[in-house]
Amino acid sequence: MARVNENYLKLKAGYLFPEIGRRVKAFADANPDAKLIRLGIGDVTEPLVPAVTRAFHSGIDALGKAETFHGYGPEQGYEWLINTIIEKAYNPLGVELKTKEVFVSDGSKCDSANILDIFDLSNKVAICDPVYPVYNDTNVMVGRSGEADEQGYYEGIVYMPCTLENDFTPALPTEKVDIIYLCYPNNPTGIAATKEQLKVWVDFAIANEAVILFDAAYEAFISEPDIPHSIYEIEGAKQCAIEFRSFSKTAGFTGVRCGLTVVPEDLMAKTASGENISLNTLWNRRQSTKFNGVSYPVQKAAAAVYSDYGLEQVKKVVAYYMENARLIREGLQGAGITCFGGVNAPYIWLKTPGNLGSWEFFDKLLQECHVVGTPGSGFGPSGEGYFRLSAFGSRENVEEAIKRFLSKWGNK
Amino acid sequence: MARVNENYLKLKAGYLFPEIGRRVKAFADANPDAKLIRLGIGDVTEPLVPAVTRAFHSGIDALGKAETFHGYGPEQGYEWLINTIIEKAYNPLGVELKTKEVFVSDGSKCDSANILDIFDLSNKVAICDPVYPVYNDTNVMVGRSGEADEQGYYEGIVYMPCTLENDFTPALPTEKVDIIYLCYPNNPTGIAATKEQLKVWVDFAIANEAVILFDAAYEAFISEPDIPHSIYEIEGAKQCAIEFRSFSKTAGFTGVRCGLTVVPEDLMAKTASGENISLNTLWNRRQSTKFNGVSYPVQKAAAAVYSDYGLEQVKKVVAYYMENARLIREGLQGAGITCFGGVNAPYIWLKTPGNLGSWEFFDKLLQECHVVGTPGSGFGPSGEGYFRLSAFGSRENVEEAIKRFLSKWGNK
Repeated sequence: MARVNENYLKLKAGYLFPEIGRRVKAFADANPDAKLIRLGIGDVTEPLVPAVTRAFHSGIDALGKAETFHGYGPEQGYEWLINTIIEKAYNPLGVELKTKEVFVSDGSKCDSANILDIFDLSNKVAICDPVYPVYNDTNVMVGRSGEADEQGYYEGIVYMPCTLENDFTPALPTEKVDIIYLCYPNNPTGIAATKEQLKVWVDFAIANEAVILFDAAYEAFISEPDIPHSIYEIEGAKQCAIEFRSFSKTAGFTGVRCGLTVVPEDLMAKTASGENISLNTLWNRRQSTKFNGVSYPVQKAAAAVYSDYGLEQVKKVVAYYMENARLIREGLQGAGITCFGGVNAPYIWLKTPGNLGSWEFFDKLLQECHVVGTPGSGFGPSGEGYFRLSAFGSRENVEEAIKRFLSKWGNK
Repeated sequence: MARVNENYLKLKAGYLFPEIGRRVKAFADANPDAKLIRLGIGDVTEPLVPAVTRAFHSGIDALGKAETFHGYGPEQGYEWLINTIIEKAYNPLGVELKTKEVFVSDGSKCDSANILDIFDLSNKVAICDPVYPVYNDTNVMVGRSGEADEQGYYEGIVYMPCTLENDFTPALPTEKVDIIYLCYPNNPTGIAATKEQLKVWVDFAIANEAVILFDAAYEAFISEPDIPHSIYEIEGAKQCAIEFRSFSKTAGFTGVRCGLTVVPEDLMAKTASGENISLNTLWNRRQSTKFNGVSYPVQKAAAAVYSDYGLEQVKKVVAYYMENARLIREGLQGAGITCFGGVNAPYIWLKTPGNLGSWEFFDKLLQECHVVGTPGSGFGPSGEGYFRLSAFGSRENVEEAIKRFLSKWGNK
């Protein structure tokens, strides 16, 4: 008798973004004339830049000819892409990496979920609250938790509240933890971490022989000069941290699919008997056995992000989104709405007007303003009463969305 | 203290194909003038067909313009692709499927590995021996086995030997099993299953409330008219089987990355208390939470495989490879080498000349003929003494490889 993984049955609701999709679709179907503006799911809206499409096309041309055809590539990604990433994205930060420390993948959502494969179930996991739901849900699915309580906290997971009271900066866990998820610049709060703040985490991880899973998906949006772009800018991080990066937001690859994960050679975890095992070796084995590499043309496109033209073009797109972020942030703040983020991240995190519940505000904003956002409580119980707006959208739509928002909730 | 998943440490050797890659690279580095012919890894060699590259390019053009840009797609794949697959690949077999029963992915290696996520660890798994190593290794990695014995059999996994004595057709397990891996046409033996043979498995699975994981990656190579292309051609299969398919071999997508998995709505597995749970719902949750869909241009390329031009063009490529298969099979058989397959699959499975060990023959064929194949023992202990040659290659290379092979081991 085949038996299911019953841990899946502990999950409370559908994954956040499909749930938003369902509500929006229901509204749109019932109101076909409503001009919806979507600042919800955090999906980019600007087209791929020309340097990227050119290289992407050239990758296909190569596959269309016998002399230049490529079949299976390395499961870890092509060396020319990895070495370009190291040279262009890490070396300028003063971070040296070896080719075998970088793994190219089809996106950092997959990697940040799949990374759990190489860890024992006994590890105690610490997760910020609110945060990107994949960290929590994948731990529940793999069986690292008990049931959820009424608030939505799963037994056995250590939650680190990020609230107005602590400036959305989590305190160090007071109990022993083994794996710590950090996401900076943060999704959903838009808050960035300084080097000093990250140093505290690195020191804590080393002292506790814990591993930090560092999600740097939004590093391209950092605008302040003293904010680190990589955890490896912090001394000691190679002994305690895995870093995830993505081309999704950096270069508009949400529909193209490419990300990367850095697992330093120096990073060890233990067997039950205390022996050190290289996590790089385990992740390499995981990827070799369960993954078959990223599409060749996609890797060509990703490499082009780092060409001189490519960098110039993607930076312009990021700047465009960040101007959107400024308009949203300043527009709302000017009208008395309390909000955060939008300086080093494409997200604005706002307190719901009138202390509405997050989903209540979601429904009101959708029905009354035809604007889609993301309910803060979807990111964790401490997100209740908050709401996330993303800066991805056309200028026209963003300005219109702010206007509609303020016509209803401004001037308070 | 972070602890590793120690199940990984039970794995005996590197994953088969990277190990072959290492040996070939060492030989090539030491013998830079040797003209290597690679019939090993089962990777295609012919370029993408024009119908596919045209659609692939058009997908990129769409991403390069704001009006036609696509960001995140559905995690399950675009409906236009899924419905095309159902209409063109399943309906002609008399198989009806619903859109929500088909999940597009970045390859069937990933799916056949990741599918274990939705099953409880207590399930007893049955695996053919020899077979594609991913089935065995992923079960070891997830903790469903004990250690390997001297032969390479892992404790707790039920192996079904496929040998000359049983025509490479496994007998039904005599002990209770819950999950059964079947791969037809088979990798590595090249043997296909008849409807009557598959019916025995479907009946067995239903009687035992077991789930069949059916790998149909090579169905496009079936040349005999009475061989089923899908497990769903067998009555009752929707109640007991998940099917994996791939564009890799069908349309030369090994470097492009696209596959699909069918999880019928009727397919249930149990909780510990005996409740029926839909595996379709669990797999949908798994994919929504841990995967982010396939590259938009790749999905456009995949859909083009089923256009009239596309089908005509990819069938020509398949026929080209199958003519290679015939040449290898008949060439070797004519010279007294015992071999199988190559009629409904692009693989020829041969008994090593002189009863050499599989790896011993691998090294000899590499060093003396500069031809790369795959040692049968790499697919499981019962593959010892066998060897796999793939029919993927240019006609010229295939003919040259046969000549070299027979100059050394022919006329016996």
